[in-house]
Amino acid sequence: MSGLKRNSEQHLMLFSGRAYPELAHSVAELMGVELVPSRLIAYANSEIYVRYEESVRGSDAFVIQSHPAPVNEWLMEQLIMVDALKRASAKRITVVAPCFPYARQDKKHLGREPISARLVSDLFRTAGADRIMSVDLHAAQIQGFFNGPLDHLSGLPVLADYVEKKYCDDNMVVVSPDAGRVRLADMWSDRLKVPLAIIHKRHDPTQANLVKVYEVVGDVEGRTCMLVDDMIDTGGTICQAANALLERGAARVIAAATHAVLSGPAEERLNATPFEEIIVTNTLPVPKGIDIPKMTVLSIAPLLARAIHEVFEDGSVTSLFTNGANVH
Amino acid sequence: MSGLKRNSEQHLMLFSGRAYPELAHSVAELMGVELVPSRLIAYANSEIYVRYEESVRGSDAFVIQSHPAPVNEWLMEQLIMVDALKRASAKRITVVAPCFPYARQDKKHLGREPISARLVSDLFRTAGADRIMSVDLHAAQIQGFFNGPLDHLSGLPVLADYVEKKYCDDNMVVVSPDAGRVRLADMWSDRLKVPLAIIHKRHDPTQANLVKVYEVVGDVEGRTCMLVDDMIDTGGTICQAANALLERGAARVIAAATHAVLSGPAEERLNATPFEEIIVTNTLPVPKGIDIPKMTVLSIAPLLARAIHEVFEDGSVTSLFTNGANVH
Amino acid sequence: MSGLKRNSEQHLMLFSGRAYPELAHSVAELMGVELVPSRLIAYANSEIYVRYEESVRGSDAFVIQSHPAPVNEWLMEQLIMVDALKRASAKRITVVAPCFPYARQDKKHLGREPISARLVSDLFRTAGADRIMSVDLHAAQIQGFFNGPLDHLSGLPVLADYVEKKYCDDNMVVVSPDAGRVRLADMWSDRLKVPLAIIHKRHDPTQANLVKVYEVVGDVEGRTCMLVDDMIDTGGTICQAANALLERGAARVIAAATHAVLSGPAEERLNATPFEEIIVTNTLPVPKGIDIPKMTVLSIAPLLARAIHEVFEDGSVTSLFTNGANVH
Amino acid sequence: MSGLKRNSEQHLMLFSGRAYPELAHSVAELMGVELVPSRLIAYANSEIYVRYEESVRGSDAFVIQSHPAPVNEWLMEQLIMVDALKRASAKRITVVAPCFPYARQDKKHLGREPISARLVSDLFRTAGADRIMSVDLHAAQIQGFFNGPLDHLSGLPVLADYVEKKYCDDNMVVVSPDAGRVRLADMWSDRLKVPLAIIHKRHDPTQANLVKVYEVVGDVEGRTCMLVDDMIDTGGTICQAANALLERGAARVIAAATHAVLSGPAEERLNATPFEEIIVTNTLPVPKGIDIPKMTVLSIAPLLARAIHEVFEDGSVTSLFTNGANVH
Amino acid sequence: MSGLKRNSEQHLMLFSGRAYPELAHSVAELMGVELVPSRLIAYANSEIYVRYEESVRGSDAFVIQSHPAPVNEWLMEQLIMVDALKRASAKRITVVAPCFPYARQDKKHLGREPISARLVSDLFRTAGADRIMSVDLHAAQIQGFFNGPLDHLSGLPVLADYVEKKYCDDNMVVVSPDAGRVRLADMWSDRLKVPLAIIHKRHDPTQANLVKVYEVVGDVEGRTCMLVDDMIDTGGTICQAANALLERGAARVIAAATHAVLSGPAEERLNATPFEEIIVTNTLPVPKGIDIPKMTVLSIAPLLARAIHEVFEDGSVTSLFTNGANVH
Amino acid sequence: MSGLKRNSEQHLMLFSGRAYPELAHSVAELMGVELVPSRLIAYANSEIYVRYEESVRGSDAFVIQSHPAPVNEWLMEQLIMVDALKRASAKRITVVAPCFPYARQDKKHLGREPISARLVSDLFRTAGADRIMSVDLHAAQIQGFFNGPLDHLSGLPVLADYVEKKYCDDNMVVVSPDAGRVRLADMWSDRLKVPLAIIHKRHDPTQANLVKVYEVVGDVEGRTCMLVDDMIDTGGTICQAANALLERGAARVIAAATHAVLSGPAEERLNATPFEEIIVTNTLPVPKGIDIPKMTVLSIAPLLARAIHEVFEDGSVTSLFTNGANVH
Repeated sequence: MSGLKRNSEQHLMLFSGRAYPELAHSVAELMGVELVPSRLIAYANSEIYVRYEESVRGSDAFVIQSHPAPVNEWLMEQLIMVDALKRASAKRITVVAPCFPYARQDKKHLGREPISARLVSDLFRTAGADRIMSVDLHAAQIQGFFNGPLDHLSGLPVLADYVEKKYCDDNMVVVSPDAGRVRLADMWSDRLKVPLAIIHKRHDPTQANLVKVYEVVGDVEGRTCMLVDDMIDTGGTICQAANALLERGAARVIAAATHAVLSGPAEERLNATPFEEIIVTNTLPVPKGIDIPKMTVLSIAPLLARAIHEVFEDGSVTSLFTNGANVH
Repeated sequence: MSGLKRNSEQHLMLFSGRAYPELAHSVAELMGVELVPSRLIAYANSEIYVRYEESVRGSDAFVIQSHPAPVNEWLMEQLIMVDALKRASAKRITVVAPCFPYARQDKKHLGREPISARLVSDLFRTAGADRIMSVDLHAAQIQGFFNGPLDHLSGLPVLADYVEKKYCDDNMVVVSPDAGRVRLADMWSDRLKVPLAIIHKRHDPTQANLVKVYEVVGDVEGRTCMLVDDMIDTGGTICQAANALLERGAARVIAAATHAVLSGPAEERLNATPFEEIIVTNTLPVPKGIDIPKMTVLSIAPLLARAIHEVFEDGSVTSLFTNGANVH
Repeated sequence: MSGLKRNSEQHLMLFSGRAYPELAHSVAELMGVELVPSRLIAYANSEIYVRYEESVRGSDAFVIQSHPAPVNEWLMEQLIMVDALKRASAKRITVVAPCFPYARQDKKHLGREPISARLVSDLFRTAGADRIMSVDLHAAQIQGFFNGPLDHLSGLPVLADYVEKKYCDDNMVVVSPDAGRVRLADMWSDRLKVPLAIIHKRHDPTQANLVKVYEVVGDVEGRTCMLVDDMIDTGGTICQAANALLERGAARVIAAATHAVLSGPAEERLNATPFEEIIVTNTLPVPKGIDIPKMTVLSIAPLLARAIHEVFEDGSVTSLFTNGANVH
Repeated sequence: MSGLKRNSEQHLMLFSGRAYPELAHSVAELMGVELVPSRLIAYANSEIYVRYEESVRGSDAFVIQSHPAPVNEWLMEQLIMVDALKRASAKRITVVAPCFPYARQDKKHLGREPISARLVSDLFRTAGADRIMSVDLHAAQIQGFFNGPLDHLSGLPVLADYVEKKYCDDNMVVVSPDAGRVRLADMWSDRLKVPLAIIHKRHDPTQANLVKVYEVVGDVEGRTCMLVDDMIDTGGTICQAANALLERGAARVIAAATHAVLSGPAEERLNATPFEEIIVTNTLPVPKGIDIPKMTVLSIAPLLARAIHEVFEDGSVTSLFTNGANVH
Repeated sequence: MSGLKRNSEQHLMLFSGRAYPELAHSVAELMGVELVPSRLIAYANSEIYVRYEESVRGSDAFVIQSHPAPVNEWLMEQLIMVDALKRASAKRITVVAPCFPYARQDKKHLGREPISARLVSDLFRTAGADRIMSVDLHAAQIQGFFNGPLDHLSGLPVLADYVEKKYCDDNMVVVSPDAGRVRLADMWSDRLKVPLAIIHKRHDPTQANLVKVYEVVGDVEGRTCMLVDDMIDTGGTICQAANALLERGAARVIAAATHAVLSGPAEERLNATPFEEIIVTNTLPVPKGIDIPKMTVLSIAPLLARAIHEVFEDGSVTSLFTNGANVH
Repeated sequence: MSGLKRNSEQHLMLFSGRAYPELAHSVAELMGVELVPSRLIAYANSEIYVRYEESVRGSDAFVIQSHPAPVNEWLMEQLIMVDALKRASAKRITVVAPCFPYARQDKKHLGREPISARLVSDLFRTAGADRIMSVDLHAAQIQGFFNGPLDHLSGLPVLADYVEKKYCDDNMVVVSPDAGRVRLADMWSDRLKVPLAIIHKRHDPTQANLVKVYEVVGDVEGRTCMLVDDMIDTGGTICQAANALLERGAARVIAAATHAVLSGPAEERLNATPFEEIIVTNTLPVPKGIDIPKMTVLSIAPLLARAIHEVFEDGSVTSLFTNGANVH
């Protein structure tokens, strides 16, 4: 047969955007590799420039970027990084977006709205991404927005292991802060083997139209309330939920969430609310200057490192974890 | 300037599959048009054949198909109908799928599963659909599975108007039959201005592993319980929920759901459970031979007719309804 | 250079749908592998659910499905199987469809018809298929409906070897049962080195409009007539052809076809017609309850097994066979 | 409502490539319009340049090009014309290709061949074509190569009307020159209500391997033989068929074909064979310098003009013709 | 014929992003329409939300956005606006990007760089843009990055009319500030009918490696030098060019450019260089706080308004302008 | 785990079109491989037929074709070659087009023109090309026309090495023959460390409208003028430039260009102009019958061979060359 032959090999390479390089470095260190040296800058006119300083031809590339504010900046940077990899002949490109940008705009709530989470998914595809890896999507359906493999990791084991060890308590109840998080609370309740309660916002029938009452459905009096959510953004929902629980006689309130956005009044609200502890992971960096003494940040890097390793080795991401619960 | 000119006009045409032609006829009648005469047959070998008996060139085509069992049959028929329209030069093709097929497989619950709802959405696109119209998607995120306009209609006003008139009662409570429907129950609670309760399945801590307990969270004793769901399939969830409510002292239990799949043991279960009334719409035909005396079927045809009319006239589907709640 | 390296390897995996698992098992056995354990079920509402019970990441996947009635059921199952493989990171996905569904709707015979064979080809692509393998497409042009490699295998050698050994006879003539199969009959005539005749349906000029006469063009008197077709569906064409031949003095009539659909009145017709023997392959299972004593079913599994092996090994499918005639 | 409104109108524009402008002019004249003035040149280096000399924005554009030799030249010209229309904002672009280029490479006859007819179809799509109009595709399946409307016109009525008037004769037989054209001959036989015969090439069993014998299947002695084909290229097949018929005692031989390619030795062969008449259409220009006294060329322009008119007016192309036979 | 008919009409709607609403308002005012009322906000976490406050169904939508810093913010906003229009059934969507973002990253200058201008073009397409309108692309080839109509307007007439009236002078010379802008200078030279000179950066042969000399090629002594560029960003190139010209004896230096980015040290540099006048257009807003007394800003709104009008009316954008020079 | 495993290997295969097989043979010889035996013919009707004579399954295929006149012929041949490779399961297909066809139609110069270079790029993609390799694109932006890796090689080092050795001279000046090639001249000036001049065409202000004057900008008197361009087509530009230089007192004129198209009057013009030497590469064959004694043709084969080798080995094409200048 005509031609030349050579054995083929897979070559894993890790790339990091500028949003939160510490996370990518942790992942790289856990995997025993180095990040590919890259030139990433924003010009004076705010356009971003990317160049890789070694050949990436044929590589199995993982582009790790966090998406804190300014989210559009970091998203465009990641898209440009992917475009450069595609044009430089990377063999397969995986976008690692621990906290998926625009995940909450996952449907039209009203007419004439965008579905930005689908748009973001399409932008990744257009730039050249072959697969996506993310943690605790706001809605699991976002998996279906991408027309290819999306490794959906779960932060629940990381958070729940910590909670279990520290707050092991017959007296605990898991609480969903609103109607939209009941399914998540259900998984926590299942995992911790404790009952469930929910907070339900409704109009006060005795009052004018727009007054909302935070109604607690379920039994919380004298109990340790474990409030769970996928994300703490401005902190409004979770702080109001905590207060409603305390008013209803909760013994203490702990909060856990995968993504700590902490924007706007979050610091003030969280510090003003008597949480026992707030437990989050570092899918996003804690914004500079924010100081929330009761907040504990657990590292998501080991989860990412193991998942990247399995993907590279064509291993099973599902089987990696004991109960199939944290990779869907 | 060279060439010929003529005024352009829009030409609405309605087409019906064989799954539930009565619904399409009702829509056509309400709109004052006739369905396009079509030849639709299954050959002896089970392959489907489609041919339209008048020209469809340049038309604004709406292909109405219900998706009861055998769902794959009706789905393929609709895909083939769309293909024939595309090749016969229809100008715009809207798939009307009142109960979106495979809507519940909208994410991977475990590794190595399909996301069939996205697949179905892509199959419609591939066949040639420009837009989709559907009622009460199992998850609103399915809107984002389609890369184009998807008119998402809501059956809630149809059902709630009926309930409001008949069961107007201070003593009512809206109940979600499980953790996944709390958001829907929340909308009902908002609409009817009554409190909320939920049913929560959990492992019995005093028993062996697989025994589930149906725990009622919220106050239902002595009340009229309004159980709400998007769909009644085998009836398992809603009947167990009804029984749990009655055990906890509910005065009576009513059930409402948009889509009446009624498969397998549904008839037996629903008849065996002491519901006051079960209220559904006819997005799906009631399966032949099924007799559920307490079930009331409301027609969805007026909603579809109005929505098709607005889409054809480039009117606002959002503004058609009073509170923006039933078309997103 | 940064990063990790590992040798890459190809990993063949075979999957079977539920339409005709015996065929897939034969293929697997011939190749010395096991089918990947899979969970395939239809829910009570007729929707299909798929899950693979071991990791398929990075695999070279072959999804074997037959397409007997109900064809839409098995087609959708295969599409869902492909979607699940795509999302579970299979590296390459080959659809094995021994008897291509909807192959006869390969063009518009009249205006406003679909071209369902192209639609099916696009549905496979949309679900995620990278290549297709099929046997004796109704028209070879269907290869061009798929925008990628389509391995088109030929059942002719399997059938002709059998015929040659059993009916080696100077007195044989190959007969095309209608104008559309002359090219196939031509290949048989070439292979068996015997003359050709054709059956030609035409209006009886002495009769009212719709009466058709089965005219035999060519010399068949006293000869062994070898009727060939790609497919026996309801048996109408081949039985009428056989009778026309016998009326014209044929000594005996044998029929051969790759695909035995055998729908509707086929059993009755074939049994009522004095064929010497009817020879088919098992690209489709013989429908349950059908009993046709004169029918011989040859296994297509060895052909599929060899072709899959060559595709996996990047060997030549063309060169596998002696005369290039059975893989185009 | 914000914004400006205006009535919309459709604007038909006809464009012609340089391969055979006379045909486009005939079509335009029949439709009462003028061709859009265009600058079409080949530079000294053989690259083609296109520019339209009036605005084409919003037009319903029909790009008429014949595809005689050098076919690649005229194909590329048409692709470039389509690209220029797309970028100049034509609203809809129809490629009119009376004799579809590369139609005979419609499948893989052997391994490692292209399917050039599918490729050409994809090239048209890529350049920007929304639909295709063609006459007598070599295989009707080519319709399925294009993912959109393809208006498939039939030249049979044009040819058969002429034949019927001139050679109306009880003694006629329609003859297929080889196994691949029997279906076409069948349609002629149906239309003219006369019997069918076929020519069958086979190895002479009494001779060495490569000698082919032209065997006539059917009764031709003393009859007027009407040889039909879709295309006369080098004339080899049709001339050998004619000679075989005459040797078998045919009274006279007439040939009819839609596409007169007439390449290589065609002129010499056709003149050397004692045809009564050869009847073709002008889907292709007669190559310069070719003189075939017995050949009659019928104009295809009226058929194209009527079809373009119907497409523009959103009329039915199917219903235009009496028996549905000439537009599929 | 079945169905309903209505006359169709085109409905122009203008939308504005938040980057520079004054420009969109000017365009709207010149066209006599109002911008569609829209809700555009950035949440505390920096994600952008869009909703239109009236129906946009069936509209011919023009989405006007400028792209000053932070460019990624405004680009994402425009993409989200387009997505919302697509999902709300706008009929045609035109992105108006007066200064195309990332236009300077239009090729790979080194290995492993992105081609961000192509990426941006693809992102617009992915979001749902049917066409693009832009002014003075950095390289005209960017037109080819978009697979559809791109109306490329020219700011040269706006600038040159002003210059001609004010500086009409036999003694003028047009100067390109570097090798990359000579083609633009050539167009100016043609338009103003004055000679050309260029500035050429080269290594000083008498000095160490990295010292660059600004060499003036052409005759500038005692002349009015008209420095032209498409864009003034940090002002480095144009200020160094001006100084080189003055050192070589230029009488005075005027600068003209379409796009005034004015980032980083631009204000300081431009004020420190003895320009007679700096003439730009407002494709971008002058950054807040910038004060450059010698700078004159001409409005681009009339050009955009006329072009949008012609596109909406299917008129010729080319013929709108006297010499074909300002719309390519 | 189920299934079979084998080590994977990469298999390089080289294919050559018929336009200039000598170049492909040189490349193959330098790489120590043989071209894949292929059957490439044009039928009498001018359609091209392709077939590979050995299996190409799984190969890393490089399809080398030059694009001299008739360019459409060779382009279509290459497209058909790619289609055949795609359908025969080549793993990766690289189009090697040393002189990119239609590169000069890279933008719309006027309204209603095509952008043929983008079209060609899309045609390659549609046929099945995964990547493109080319030398000295007329505009580097053409890289962005292809949505994948495009290896852009530079012929400058090949040409400049030769010039440097032979004409090393303090007295040299690099001259751009018109405004569009200044950037290229700038790179030569940088490489040879000599000054720059340009030729500028303008209307003679003392004469009627259409007379153009070739104005020399920069100092050329008594110097060796090195005229550089990417391409010599009809020779008009470069010969007029040479004459203008000689009129302005140039000592001697040398010309260098990568692509020697040499069409139309090129031979006559080049021979009539007193060049010292004309230096080109063989990205195109010298047209038959052309004799230009002063022309030196350097081989581009070593550059192509090294680049193909690096691409196959996943090496760095950038790092292959000393200064990054010849592969972008």
